[in-house]
Amino acid sequence: MAIFPTDRPRRSRLVITGAAGGIGKMIRGKLDHIADEIVLSDLTDVSCSGNERSQTCDLADLDAVRALLKGGGDVLHFGGQSTEAPFERILNANLIGSYNLYEAARLEGVRRVLFASSNHVIGFHPRETLLDADSPMRPDSLYGVSKVYGEGLAHLYHDKFGIESLLLRIGSCFKEPSDRRQLATWMSPQDMIHAIERFVMVPRLGCPVVYGRSNNSENWWDNSKTDYLGWNPQDTAEVFRGKVEAATEVPSPLDPAVKYQGGAFVTADHPGTKEE
Amino acid sequence: MAIFPTDRPRRSRLVITGAAGGIGKMIRGKLDHIADEIVLSDLTDVSCSGNERSQTCDLADLDAVRALLKGGGDVLHFGGQSTEAPFERILNANLIGSYNLYEAARLEGVRRVLFASSNHVIGFHPRETLLDADSPMRPDSLYGVSKVYGEGLAHLYHDKFGIESLLLRIGSCFKEPSDRRQLATWMSPQDMIHAIERFVMVPRLGCPVVYGRSNNSENWWDNSKTDYLGWNPQDTAEVFRGKVEAATEVPSPLDPAVKYQGGAFVTADHPGTKEE
Amino acid sequence: MAIFPTDRPRRSRLVITGAAGGIGKMIRGKLDHIADEIVLSDLTDVSCSGNERSQTCDLADLDAVRALLKGGGDVLHFGGQSTEAPFERILNANLIGSYNLYEAARLEGVRRVLFASSNHVIGFHPRETLLDADSPMRPDSLYGVSKVYGEGLAHLYHDKFGIESLLLRIGSCFKEPSDRRQLATWMSPQDMIHAIERFVMVPRLGCPVVYGRSNNSENWWDNSKTDYLGWNPQDTAEVFRGKVEAATEVPSPLDPAVKYQGGAFVTADHPGTKEE
Amino acid sequence: MAIFPTDRPRRSRLVITGAAGGIGKMIRGKLDHIADEIVLSDLTDVSCSGNERSQTCDLADLDAVRALLKGGGDVLHFGGQSTEAPFERILNANLIGSYNLYEAARLEGVRRVLFASSNHVIGFHPRETLLDADSPMRPDSLYGVSKVYGEGLAHLYHDKFGIESLLLRIGSCFKEPSDRRQLATWMSPQDMIHAIERFVMVPRLGCPVVYGRSNNSENWWDNSKTDYLGWNPQDTAEVFRGKVEAATEVPSPLDPAVKYQGGAFVTADHPGTKEE
Amino acid sequence: MAIFPTDRPRRSRLVITGAAGGIGKMIRGKLDHIADEIVLSDLTDVSCSGNERSQTCDLADLDAVRALLKGGGDVLHFGGQSTEAPFERILNANLIGSYNLYEAARLEGVRRVLFASSNHVIGFHPRETLLDADSPMRPDSLYGVSKVYGEGLAHLYHDKFGIESLLLRIGSCFKEPSDRRQLATWMSPQDMIHAIERFVMVPRLGCPVVYGRSNNSENWWDNSKTDYLGWNPQDTAEVFRGKVEAATEVPSPLDPAVKYQGGAFVTADHPGTKEE
Amino acid sequence: MAIFPTDRPRRSRLVITGAAGGIGKMIRGKLDHIADEIVLSDLTDVSCSGNERSQTCDLADLDAVRALLKGGGDVLHFGGQSTEAPFERILNANLIGSYNLYEAARLEGVRRVLFASSNHVIGFHPRETLLDADSPMRPDSLYGVSKVYGEGLAHLYHDKFGIESLLLRIGSCFKEPSDRRQLATWMSPQDMIHAIERFVMVPRLGCPVVYGRSNNSENWWDNSKTDYLGWNPQDTAEVFRGKVEAATEVPSPLDPAVKYQGGAFVTADHPGTKEE
Repeated sequence: MAIFPTDRPRRSRLVITGAAGGIGKMIRGKLDHIADEIVLSDLTDVSCSGNERSQTCDLADLDAVRALLKGGGDVLHFGGQSTEAPFERILNANLIGSYNLYEAARLEGVRRVLFASSNHVIGFHPRETLLDADSPMRPDSLYGVSKVYGEGLAHLYHDKFGIESLLLRIGSCFKEPSDRRQLATWMSPQDMIHAIERFVMVPRLGCPVVYGRSNNSENWWDNSKTDYLGWNPQDTAEVFRGKVEAATEVPSPLDPAVKYQGGAFVTADHPGTKEE
Repeated sequence: MAIFPTDRPRRSRLVITGAAGGIGKMIRGKLDHIADEIVLSDLTDVSCSGNERSQTCDLADLDAVRALLKGGGDVLHFGGQSTEAPFERILNANLIGSYNLYEAARLEGVRRVLFASSNHVIGFHPRETLLDADSPMRPDSLYGVSKVYGEGLAHLYHDKFGIESLLLRIGSCFKEPSDRRQLATWMSPQDMIHAIERFVMVPRLGCPVVYGRSNNSENWWDNSKTDYLGWNPQDTAEVFRGKVEAATEVPSPLDPAVKYQGGAFVTADHPGTKEE
Repeated sequence: MAIFPTDRPRRSRLVITGAAGGIGKMIRGKLDHIADEIVLSDLTDVSCSGNERSQTCDLADLDAVRALLKGGGDVLHFGGQSTEAPFERILNANLIGSYNLYEAARLEGVRRVLFASSNHVIGFHPRETLLDADSPMRPDSLYGVSKVYGEGLAHLYHDKFGIESLLLRIGSCFKEPSDRRQLATWMSPQDMIHAIERFVMVPRLGCPVVYGRSNNSENWWDNSKTDYLGWNPQDTAEVFRGKVEAATEVPSPLDPAVKYQGGAFVTADHPGTKEE
Repeated sequence: MAIFPTDRPRRSRLVITGAAGGIGKMIRGKLDHIADEIVLSDLTDVSCSGNERSQTCDLADLDAVRALLKGGGDVLHFGGQSTEAPFERILNANLIGSYNLYEAARLEGVRRVLFASSNHVIGFHPRETLLDADSPMRPDSLYGVSKVYGEGLAHLYHDKFGIESLLLRIGSCFKEPSDRRQLATWMSPQDMIHAIERFVMVPRLGCPVVYGRSNNSENWWDNSKTDYLGWNPQDTAEVFRGKVEAATEVPSPLDPAVKYQGGAFVTADHPGTKEE
Repeated sequence: MAIFPTDRPRRSRLVITGAAGGIGKMIRGKLDHIADEIVLSDLTDVSCSGNERSQTCDLADLDAVRALLKGGGDVLHFGGQSTEAPFERILNANLIGSYNLYEAARLEGVRRVLFASSNHVIGFHPRETLLDADSPMRPDSLYGVSKVYGEGLAHLYHDKFGIESLLLRIGSCFKEPSDRRQLATWMSPQDMIHAIERFVMVPRLGCPVVYGRSNNSENWWDNSKTDYLGWNPQDTAEVFRGKVEAATEVPSPLDPAVKYQGGAFVTADHPGTKEE
Repeated sequence: MAIFPTDRPRRSRLVITGAAGGIGKMIRGKLDHIADEIVLSDLTDVSCSGNERSQTCDLADLDAVRALLKGGGDVLHFGGQSTEAPFERILNANLIGSYNLYEAARLEGVRRVLFASSNHVIGFHPRETLLDADSPMRPDSLYGVSKVYGEGLAHLYHDKFGIESLLLRIGSCFKEPSDRRQLATWMSPQDMIHAIERFVMVPRLGCPVVYGRSNNSENWWDNSKTDYLGWNPQDTAEVFRGKVEAATEVPSPLDPAVKYQGGAFVTADHPGTKEE
């Protein structure tokens, strides 16, 4: 049963996992207006500026994660494995890691988590299908399966303990789109910052699924069920179309990586277990 | 059975009930381009300008309402009780009043009514649910129940007698939003004027449900089923965000007035009957 | 906000309004297995047997309704006006009466009401449309509008005060079907008894809409959304088909009373107000 | 079973049927950037410029159509009968003609067709109903029925032979809207050009239904299921509203040509067979 | 616009096209209880019994079809081509033939037609997809496309002229199922008779799509939207399962004829035109 | 991309994991008619009869699982942890175990798996909501989250490697229902056997979600999307109602274990990690 034992405090503190990763680098130094203190966390220390400070943490170690969240605050959970990998890596970073994150949040009284999910939880849907928050899961990789699991954890901790999560199914969050598929899936760094702002500001978050993409002309994902959040991406991949098309081959419509939304993940070799 | 015995005449006349109320004041003097004569009606006389003239009318008196509608024309029905109130007040102003309005319309040959419904017919839906015209009713007050009833009357008079109605579920129609909830529910005066224009101009109105809100970033209501009307709100509450947030407390996500769309109506004391 | 302040007691008491009406007569004497005491109520005293006792009550009198519900228990609300009538009659019996019923329930601690709604809340849907609990309202009469209002009240008292209601949209509850339309809309007395049993027994009722009809071959209404109640009608109008068709004319498919689900209500004269 | 035996080549060639028709004239001379060679085809020769060349073809003659498509390339199929007509004309131009077009495409290895379908496949839906790609067909004319058939052919050749089609249900493609209905249905020539560009460029087309209209304020058609194509019309009929309303009568809301989306097609005389 | 100029008469006459075909043979001699006179029609005379009489008719000849329908009555249209065939055969029997049938119905005042459509209008849907009356068309053959067209004609003549049609998408109507696919698609002769009875008896038919299959355990088609007709098939293919499985090979799940609902039609050779 | 490299062989072999568990015991000795050889597997040896033989296997050991599946055949995967447990237990038995099962299936050429999922993947939906195969996941426990993950794995191995799975969300599979909730969730042993038969026999399985419950009067789950499987449960918990109600207390409708479908799982203590 959803219970909400205490009021939500103002943001005096924001914790970022995966601060050394691609998205972590992109957002560091740009969130001063959101919290008094920003804790950057990764396996090793990262450089800090302004109100940031660094705290190392191995997500596979529950005690370390509890220590990281001890001061409370909202969490941006960008840590863990963010591409396909052998099962052992997925197991430690994402299956055990996400459990530790939510369990530590429960034990330390954290009330709100931005969970970096991925379009790869729905990668085996064809491009012709417009998806929304309630579309069935069709993971395209072990990585995608681990995000299906992570979203399940988030729902459990919301329904049972009242911890709110933004399940952000990130498309391709880079400085600019680099292939034709990303003309549809690109999420600009600025639109990511704005999503984080809305995550922090909205009075009632709940546990919504949001697809992370800019306001691109080609679009596979319908976010209208979460209009209540007030997140309206402003950038568009269309301004990069000429550059991208000049630099890349015309793909075959017969290529499964074109047929399905997951792109190259769909056709990638299966990593299997490390031992193989 | 829907029957349409006569052609719809050009607008030589427009009748406004509740002309002394909040919305009435907002639109008076701004509708000359819509009709030759504008009849302003309320319990007491209101001041007029241009092509306006005043005619007092108690909505609880069928004969008076018939007299008001005798000259025909379209009706903007903003009259009646517009907030929660003891049952007797709701009964007279809205249950008897709305019946009198539609019955008089039938008897006097009025063909088109803008019925001021309210978001409080759906106030017990959570904010996370995007609603549209066919979402089930969840009134949050006796006032809301009276609007459920009024929409039912409008459908009956449409299906049986061909009287068309615009069921405008108004959010918060004020000069500007004054609390955080209104950042989502605000409907600007100018967008109200434009809705009235479309109500009058569209060749075939039918009996559609439209949510009355501006083009706000936070949005709980999907109007796409009534795109045929051509009403596209132009204003946005977002320009008032800074001002509103500076002036108001951060609400708790645990507050039912934050959880449900109806806001403070959901937690308001129940008025009961006058006698209590 | 839905609150449930106390546990639901076992049924020591069952109150029936409209006990002198058609359905009231049908079920009297058949509900001993459901409650220790059964209170039969109508404008005048009705004859009792077994554990029944009679208590007169004018639904338009809130004090009288409070007196009726003072002892608590579940309520079968079959009282009020059950066909089309002039507005004054509808107003007193159904608009004021239903409010008094729910307000008295709130004040006296009643937790569960079977609200006798009607197929006439959806009478202007064509027969070709299969309806379910969430289909939009299309009342075919002032009577139907009063039931739209009554369902709205029930939702308000559920969402705000936790009073559960079964919104039973009764088709044609008679000993047997008497015209061709009733081959689709008939609800047998035995299936009504069984619906009452499930209303009383189901651990969690909520506030569901259920269409009251037997297991007829011709069917316009889909109850599957309320399968959780466990109400499975056992009778069928089909066994009366030969008799009905022999006794009645072949109707024209052009007749609005055949086109729309509401039947003769759709084409009936409009009662207007008493004065006319 | 959908099979895709070969990769899709770059556009060295684009074939346009119906090049002498209204839309044909509109787009000629504006597609150089899309293909190396543009073959303009109609019953008689049309004038050419730039990389265009003309080749006559009677669509009712399979051999001629095969000759037209022999060089491969994408096809814009604007040929055939584009308004209501006696059955014989529909039969030859659209029933036999569309079959010949798709059969020739199969035999000559054409992989992609823009099939000019029409809003008249759904003309008997009321304006109040927002339609999308999966709305049931409701043709308003023999012409409309022939387009229902053409869309069926397109699906067969896609599912069985992998030929992709854009099923473009064109509204009113003219230089500007000329009556009040076209304020909703207008598709600007520039938006048509852009649709053709997207048809050619999108890596994977599939066999989608798209409604051909500009970004008009009044809108009956929801294209969001095909957002993946990246076609976002830029023009709007709204800029012509004043001119159109000044030049045309206020229509009656009782006119079936106003009630239904098909407009005058709905009330037009039935052509029957030529012999009558 | 749907208009219904005259009342529907009692069935004094029933016309059956395709009376010499498979289904025709099955139902001949079994419909005396439905009409005073039964006219059996095919290209050549068929033997008659009871109240039947024979009248030859080539469906490709409009005058002959008008002569057949001159006496009015309801029509069971089982005539035309009922399997895949070269385009010329489809063209004459089904494209021209169905037009002639409906045009003759209009000219001769016939008000009700049972149109023998086919599951092959949706044959390219996978078996895993439960279809209903509004599922998009996916024809698996030229034959299937001709039935898509026929359903379109039926809708046009319903919406414009008020002629009602039962669009019966027949599965496999034989004495018993003969392969594993027919364990799902079988429609027993007795269930066909009962469907014809309901077609004739229901006061208001409209223009519904119904899938013709018995009450089989394996089921791909949901008829609940047409429950109003009162057709409830009583037989089941399950009683033939042992016999069928003993007599047939285990099919491969990789076979497109197993993947898609259309079975062998999906993998059949394409007939092309006669000349090839 | 779904690929199906080889035909599916006849069942010469059936492997059952979790053969020593509750369901394993229920079905042992009852599946001779399904396969030539039945391999019973659990952590320790189980007693065999008929064509059964025992092979021990720790699901957390990939090599052992490969050895188990080496001979191919279909798999009934009832192994792993089947109730809530500390995370380490869930991790080994279900997260690692299910991966090993599917990875071994891929490596050893197994083509079909019955995956024992659970109603606890949707346990946080209220009872009033009728769920189907596409309802969003709402796990009520770490156990439930592990089944969300398992279903994700099954989809991945289906979409990428063509391994078919029946995702059977088992309700309460016992000899008879023992509490009031099980009057809705009970699945009889005989209906389980029949589900296994259909799993084995259906020519094309795909990867469907099926709710495992008998034909109970109270019902929360709609299986109609998988009617193509031909599984129609025959038993009903209703015959045990009297016995169950006599033996158990009337639950409070306020109890979350009554409000939500997951029952006692919803209110159970959170196991956390083993160390706590």
